[in-house]
Amino acid sequence: MTAVTDTIRNGVDTEKMFATLDLIKAQPELARFQFRATNRWIDGAHNRSTIKGFYAAGGEDTSRSAEFHADAGEPAILLGTDTGPNPAEYLLHALAACLTTSIVYVAAARKVELTSVESTLTGDMDVRGALGVDDEPRNGFERIEVSFRLAGRAPEEKLRDVVERARKRSAVYDMVTNGVPVALNVTTD
Amino acid sequence: MTAVTDTIRNGVDTEKMFATLDLIKAQPELARFQFRATNRWIDGAHNRSTIKGFYAAGGEDTSRSAEFHADAGEPAILLGTDTGPNPAEYLLHALAACLTTSIVYVAAARKVELTSVESTLTGDMDVRGALGVDDEPRNGFERIEVSFRLAGRAPEEKLRDVVERARKRSAVYDMVTNGVPVALNVTTD
Repeated sequence: MTAVTDTIRNGVDTEKMFATLDLIKAQPELARFQFRATNRWIDGAHNRSTIKGFYAAGGEDTSRSAEFHADAGEPAILLGTDTGPNPAEYLLHALAACLTTSIVYVAAARKVELTSVESTLTGDMDVRGALGVDDEPRNGFERIEVSFRLAGRAPEEKLRDVVERARKRSAVYDMVTNGVPVALNVTTD
Repeated sequence: MTAVTDTIRNGVDTEKMFATLDLIKAQPELARFQFRATNRWIDGAHNRSTIKGFYAAGGEDTSRSAEFHADAGEPAILLGTDTGPNPAEYLLHALAACLTTSIVYVAAARKVELTSVESTLTGDMDVRGALGVDDEPRNGFERIEVSFRLAGRAPEEKLRDVVERARKRSAVYDMVTNGVPVALNVTTD
């Protein structure tokens, strides 16, 4: 095997991963990150976020060459025209994506070669809350169920340990299960 | 004015909105919704969610003609190749999109014509948590700051009241600030 095949596992450069971890252990101040999104209303339930810049490792990151755009919408029953997934579906996507990346990175660090990671997420909601019809149901999902199906070249127990460690370290899992303080400012023209 | 221009406000069909609210008040069992996302790992930090089907108003909704796809990734400093926004950025987008749609709908219901709704969201994170370098910092954002800039044909106080009501009813704002119970199941092949 060449050095390259040795260090890349699950598409993750483990040599760079361990170097990053060592650097952050040595200089914890480099661990301060800030992510951002800007959003603009287009019409009705259609709005679009633009995502590009972020602060990382002591300075503004300039490595991204292009903006990302994400369009949100609502289906007809919620008065939209399907211009994109709705915001609650995007929250499920954020959770799925974070757990999946955490699984892939943890597996790479533990020398576990994965061949497949798939998940299905469901969120149950009584829309009387968000629609303002009733004060009793909460606005958001009452519960989220996440089902992962993993395959890899490792015993089942090791694969399950990878998922458990990923769950313990996932940023979005932490935020969705524990909540985050949100400050909301408004300016009017 | 025609009936059409009377009932459509901010791109929202208010006649249909009030009919929906009346229907759900009369038959609360129609308020049970389930949203879903499936996700598949592609390589490294790249994974993709597919979003289409959902349960609503007593049955499986079949109005969506096409699947939505959302690609996630990580920037180089987090060992990815920018295949999409990262999961934490998608969470900011979900929050921005939900608050924006809530503002637009509340304004439509209150006969407030909006001309512009823009927002900037930031989330601060100490990545030592998610990277597993230190147990002290939490994995997710310590705080999120949301700044809205609104313009519309209404006094400032009325615009601020719209935002306040939207914040009180937003599904994703509720989930992000209060958290949601998440059940995680794993199957291995």
